[in-house]
Amino acid sequence: MNLILLFRDDFVDGGTRVRLGGRRLRHIREVHGAAPGDTLSVGLEGDRIGAGRVTHLDAELLEMDVELVLRPPEPLPLTLVLALPRPKVLRRVLPAVSAMGIKRLFLINAYRVEKSFWQSPVLSRESVNAQLILGLEQARDTILPEVFFRDRFKPFVEDELPALSRNTLAVVAHPTAQQECPRNAGGPVTLAIGPEGGFIPYEIEEFVSAGFSAVTLGERILSVETAVPFLVSRLF
Amino acid sequence: MNLILLFRDDFVDGGTRVRLGGRRLRHIREVHGAAPGDTLSVGLEGDRIGAGRVTHLDAELLEMDVELVLRPPEPLPLTLVLALPRPKVLRRVLPAVSAMGIKRLFLINAYRVEKSFWQSPVLSRESVNAQLILGLEQARDTILPEVFFRDRFKPFVEDELPALSRNTLAVVAHPTAQQECPRNAGGPVTLAIGPEGGFIPYEIEEFVSAGFSAVTLGERILSVETAVPFLVSRLF
Repeated sequence: MNLILLFRDDFVDGGTRVRLGGRRLRHIREVHGAAPGDTLSVGLEGDRIGAGRVTHLDAELLEMDVELVLRPPEPLPLTLVLALPRPKVLRRVLPAVSAMGIKRLFLINAYRVEKSFWQSPVLSRESVNAQLILGLEQARDTILPEVFFRDRFKPFVEDELPALSRNTLAVVAHPTAQQECPRNAGGPVTLAIGPEGGFIPYEIEEFVSAGFSAVTLGERILSVETAVPFLVSRLF
Repeated sequence: MNLILLFRDDFVDGGTRVRLGGRRLRHIREVHGAAPGDTLSVGLEGDRIGAGRVTHLDAELLEMDVELVLRPPEPLPLTLVLALPRPKVLRRVLPAVSAMGIKRLFLINAYRVEKSFWQSPVLSRESVNAQLILGLEQARDTILPEVFFRDRFKPFVEDELPALSRNTLAVVAHPTAQQECPRNAGGPVTLAIGPEGGFIPYEIEEFVSAGFSAVTLGERILSVETAVPFLVSRLF
């Protein structure tokens, strides 16, 4: 937790005083080992970052006076379209997504997405937000990504994706593609990544019809968890 | 498992016939849903890759005739020096390391590495190899990385690292460095990545004395799991 993410509800007098309990309090006590008088990095969700001076700290409650003066890091101009991964992989991908500054994520169906994945509690708004917040705290950002679920492939790719990806470099990662993934795109990107086992040929054709280029990282097939940061880093 | 990794012991007649049980058998039955007559991607540890035709398959045993004709993917000319991460993170980093083609990994001590991490069973040769094999199977590679443990920082960085990193681009990732991480280095690299919370200033000075440049990825601090593929992709 390189930044303590605060929410409007944490403020006690509508001004600069914050009261925290629960997970953040425990982390500040146990990992940061903070004491009254210490200054911590803080940020307000959707807003600025700054410093909080601890005025009170015990096992139940922390109070801070906060000053929020700096803008959070720049967002990444990337829309990520990800075939819904298995729940335990999704849990790990979400903090990476928010830490890298991605602000728009579509989790979509595909032929090789197991139906049961759509029933996982990991897809609940609460669980998704908790994982995204971990990434923001890691990267010292305050802007939560928007996450959209699309459980039907064809209507999403045919009706929604062309407008979403307009005026962006639109690429779909596909191990057997001929074209190498571009480096350092220098502008907005829409990146699609398939499920374990990849998109099927029909799905790749649908992406191509929507204006996407199929690109490869070479001979090695990476897991979704590794491919996401690897591709994002390559493209920016 | 995009490739079934075979070992010399799996061969039954010193020739081309292989017998498998255990984890690989279960995966081939349950995930691949293979049947006799099917052909699977296989590779021999430390050797070539090719195809295996299933000749027998039941709940206890799989037999294949294998033909090994192709070279595995090129290794990445990268030595990774990683401050020992917490065990559950190490477990996830190891498959990413082998999947990306890294062939030399040093896990080292640093001021912010918790002492207890060195006692974890995840550091056993057996556990490390099991995780590395998952990455090889993912990326269709056969060459296991060498993994070295160095539980004393100073002798490693002062006495061993200068020779290890000679004639390579030697960089240590450090959030507050001034220099941006180079892109597409085009040659051999030695990359050092710190623990959660980073290397301390003395440690960065030691790396610099050993010929390393401190480089940053910008304002965002990434977790070790995300930073490893992100930095590797940036550098190659």
